[in-house]
Amino acid sequence: MRLTAFTDFGLRTLMYLASLEEEQLSSVSEVASIYNVSQNHMVKVIGQLAKLGYVQTIRGKNGGIRLAMKPADINIGDVIAKMENHLDGVDCISTSCQLIPCCELKHALAEAMNAFLDTMRRYTLADLVANKSELIPLMVAR
Amino acid sequence: MRLTAFTDFGLRTLMYLASLEEEQLSSVSEVASIYNVSQNHMVKVIGQLAKLGYVQTIRGKNGGIRLAMKPADINIGDVIAKMENHLDGVDCISTSCQLIPCCELKHALAEAMNAFLDTMRRYTLADLVANKSELIPLMVAR
Repeated sequence: MRLTAFTDFGLRTLMYLASLEEEQLSSVSEVASIYNVSQNHMVKVIGQLAKLGYVQTIRGKNGGIRLAMKPADINIGDVIAKMENHLDGVDCISTSCQLIPCCELKHALAEAMNAFLDTMRRYTLADLVANKSELIPLMVAR
Repeated sequence: MRLTAFTDFGLRTLMYLASLEEEQLSSVSEVASIYNVSQNHMVKVIGQLAKLGYVQTIRGKNGGIRLAMKPADINIGDVIAKMENHLDGVDCISTSCQLIPCCELKHALAEAMNAFLDTMRRYTLADLVANKSELIPLMVAR
């Protein structure tokens, strides 16, 4: 059971941006290169983060991307809930499951998924980069 | 965020077997046909359920498969914990994530995954097929 790659890289992008100095700009290609994923995929991830108001994109020659909110104001449970397409735990529809009309599994999974999100809602982006001082030398060393 | 297809079909197999009469036998091909998945995949899923002691396989001409335990004794959280390979939420290793040495995300995800499993541990297989009477006509109608 894992987050989709889309959400996963969304969270890592936010963590990376939070590790930079407050006004420092990064770029899609920089984030893609750090995490060794395709720039195309990162365009979509960062586009969604911008649409959701977490990331600010500044156009032009000296443009780039940065956090649009303070790390302490970015709730990780909310980021996951907004980025994940599938918070149902199982795919009942595309498998045409015969159990759909009377299945209790999906209710149990919905309850468990809420417990997962409630736990993640106790964290902000600031908590995830609390040891920022250890993070920066790693980024510089790459 | 979803269970792997392996766990998902493991749970559905258990639900189907629990919907049958106590000593009634089913077969890998029957379960594969109900859920419209390949028999090869189902051999692996049911093999693992047997290895874990949830399913009994009876060899020979009149052989088949059935539950090896009472539905009320099969804890759904435990089934998920035993069937899922990846309960870490994100794949840090194969992406060679630079954040590994100081990442707080994986701790938060581990805590949230425990909350998910704890919720699922409140359910047994008997709870999931509580409305068995609605389930049986569906199976017969196929």
